[in-house]
Amino acid sequence: MSEIEAGLIRNMAIKAKRAAEPLAATPSAVKNNVLLSVVDLLEKNKERIQRENSKDLEVARAKGLSSAMIDRLELTDDVIKSMITGLREVVALPDPVGEVFDMARRPNDMTVGRMRIPLGVIGMIYESRPNVTIDAAALCLKTGNAIILRGGSEAINSNIVLSEVLQEALAENNINADAVQVIPTIDREAINELLSQDDLIDLIIPRGGEGLIRFVAENSKVPVLKHYKGVCHIYVDKDADLAKATPIIINSKTQRPGVCNALEGLLVDKTVAESYLPEISNHLAKAGVELLGCGEAVRLSKSISLAKDDDWGTEFLDLKLCIKVVESFSEAKEYILEHGSQHTEVILTENYSTAQQFIREIDASGVFVNVSTRFNDGGQLGLGTEIGISTTKLHAYGPMGLRELTTSKFIVYGEGQVRE
Amino acid sequence: MSEIEAGLIRNMAIKAKRAAEPLAATPSAVKNNVLLSVVDLLEKNKERIQRENSKDLEVARAKGLSSAMIDRLELTDDVIKSMITGLREVVALPDPVGEVFDMARRPNDMTVGRMRIPLGVIGMIYESRPNVTIDAAALCLKTGNAIILRGGSEAINSNIVLSEVLQEALAENNINADAVQVIPTIDREAINELLSQDDLIDLIIPRGGEGLIRFVAENSKVPVLKHYKGVCHIYVDKDADLAKATPIIINSKTQRPGVCNALEGLLVDKTVAESYLPEISNHLAKAGVELLGCGEAVRLSKSISLAKDDDWGTEFLDLKLCIKVVESFSEAKEYILEHGSQHTEVILTENYSTAQQFIREIDASGVFVNVSTRFNDGGQLGLGTEIGISTTKLHAYGPMGLRELTTSKFIVYGEGQVRE
Repeated sequence: MSEIEAGLIRNMAIKAKRAAEPLAATPSAVKNNVLLSVVDLLEKNKERIQRENSKDLEVARAKGLSSAMIDRLELTDDVIKSMITGLREVVALPDPVGEVFDMARRPNDMTVGRMRIPLGVIGMIYESRPNVTIDAAALCLKTGNAIILRGGSEAINSNIVLSEVLQEALAENNINADAVQVIPTIDREAINELLSQDDLIDLIIPRGGEGLIRFVAENSKVPVLKHYKGVCHIYVDKDADLAKATPIIINSKTQRPGVCNALEGLLVDKTVAESYLPEISNHLAKAGVELLGCGEAVRLSKSISLAKDDDWGTEFLDLKLCIKVVESFSEAKEYILEHGSQHTEVILTENYSTAQQFIREIDASGVFVNVSTRFNDGGQLGLGTEIGISTTKLHAYGPMGLRELTTSKFIVYGEGQVRE
Repeated sequence: MSEIEAGLIRNMAIKAKRAAEPLAATPSAVKNNVLLSVVDLLEKNKERIQRENSKDLEVARAKGLSSAMIDRLELTDDVIKSMITGLREVVALPDPVGEVFDMARRPNDMTVGRMRIPLGVIGMIYESRPNVTIDAAALCLKTGNAIILRGGSEAINSNIVLSEVLQEALAENNINADAVQVIPTIDREAINELLSQDDLIDLIIPRGGEGLIRFVAENSKVPVLKHYKGVCHIYVDKDADLAKATPIIINSKTQRPGVCNALEGLLVDKTVAESYLPEISNHLAKAGVELLGCGEAVRLSKSISLAKDDDWGTEFLDLKLCIKVVESFSEAKEYILEHGSQHTEVILTENYSTAQQFIREIDASGVFVNVSTRFNDGGQLGLGTEIGISTTKLHAYGPMGLRELTTSKFIVYGEGQVRE
């Protein structure tokens, strides 16, 4: 990497930090006006955006990228419309910044509490889809954070034009446009530079394949919130209501198999396996799901073929499912501990104590009773939206909404108190 | 480092993770009983502990360590008593684990909320004082976390005997003794090994000098909560009540000058400087404080000598103070932004709007009005106790109490809901 480019990233981070300071104290109404200006400018500049986007599409086709990847890259009228809908939703959400909580009087009569504040500068590293540029910028601006965006190299022209729209919206509202910056080079070294600005950047969020996320986690000096993968399970307990179980399992596996909160492993208690496994495997097979199971599962249903050792715990992201008959709650728990990814774990049971034990003892970002795995999502859980899902525990565990883009400081109102 | 030692740290981390899992679901009463057993065992084993401690003291004397360092190392009867008092205080604190919050009904009738859980395995790296071994272990056990401790090499014999006491207390209460482990070697490579166990350890907390903390932050693959230094300021606003100001400033600077929440910089608004600077500098000089100031400060008081450029923003940890006359609130804010360490910033003012503006706009873990800087401390702010102070924003900002040693997972109680 040339020294000019190294200076470029450092300089962007310096400018972002400078922009973050006044942004932290900017009132909600102004931040919302910026987002509404983005809406206007997306509409006004649609043709220009699509023209830049078509440059990316041309390169992608010339490179022979898959049609799925090209689909994800394209900024169709519908994609732009959904970006606008997303912006309006973020405008409608309450602003967490400035919330004062845990305020209490101390014995010496000081009033002590906490005030929610932005994190500062956030670096976002993601692959392909250029709509993430708008989504991520909206969430960061709403929470008073400056953001530096590094999208996939395939989307570079699209991301640059979108950043121009974002910066124009900031300028229109007299906010320092450096609050949103897109890294204007596809040089991969720029990522390393970004990850080393630990005196200026407060958080890095990587979104993409496991390879990208591992690379970021291993090389970053800045704290990282990461999500490696979702290997989600449903445990059909001996006291499950099997009439409820079937729609939940089918929904978890088939409603959108390519996402992280889709079902990858089904554990069936041996007490109900004899009667229920043939039934559920028929339903799944009819829905086009390839079934891989343990010896006992294979014995109970012709639709199931024997799983290989490395099928267990695999994130298929496809119409494929591992099925295991377990002896007990304990064996299900052990299996989840070994093969789960601390993403989403579900028990199906009508037994009060078993449900409570599962909720308490299972370690995952989402632990659910009698619902689909597909609910582990910021929107579904009531956060309004999400910027990602964390499967590590520091700062955030599970879907990250607006609140997770903030921290809090201690505030004290005193009358001259000194320490004894 | 030999391969046997490398295997040693890995193995300790594996054992810690295994111990953490059942510990997470251990009831408060059992965890408190462990801490009460530690109290008993400290009393019963006092002589043995002091015998091992005297080995460390002997080595320290032979090495010619300063008497201050030897003082910090010694486990006198009083130090052991204060360890016991600390343990009883932790027993008395409420257990944050298991707290359920933000529970609400979703439109589809699922009940969704969060449950507070331990972080898992915590690695603690600290210097010298062996009482930290007991303090840190107590806070981690109370919050259901396993802990691996790496104290200073000078305290190795003391720390090993204290870990034996801790493990005996765990075993007495049928808890896996691997929940508390002290690294039994002074080989510095052990720290590097510890910092690379990111699949097993959830958090590293370094406590000590800036050099140690920078080393840990730069080399850790595990998330780190860190606190570099405390460069704390008081801004005497033009509307300050000067009768309140003097005791606050004296207390902030002199009550315990060697700690991170002691005052290092005093900013005085020019409107009050002429009358107040001579007065406060006399008080400070009488209290033995060496005063370094800007040209205007030097002009106003004979007790102040001209500061060198690199005095501004220095953490003296001593009876030394920088004094600057500022033109306005804005200049005070700029100065704090440039020289502060995001630790503690105080304004002295009777003006309502100025106080609110300071609280809102100043970025530090503690932002206070009309009180001593010395209140930025877990105990003083109502956390009961603290395991450190974070001056970075992810996960925790400011004093970290029991709650900061936990995270939360999403829990859902459903009745068969599937995603549309």
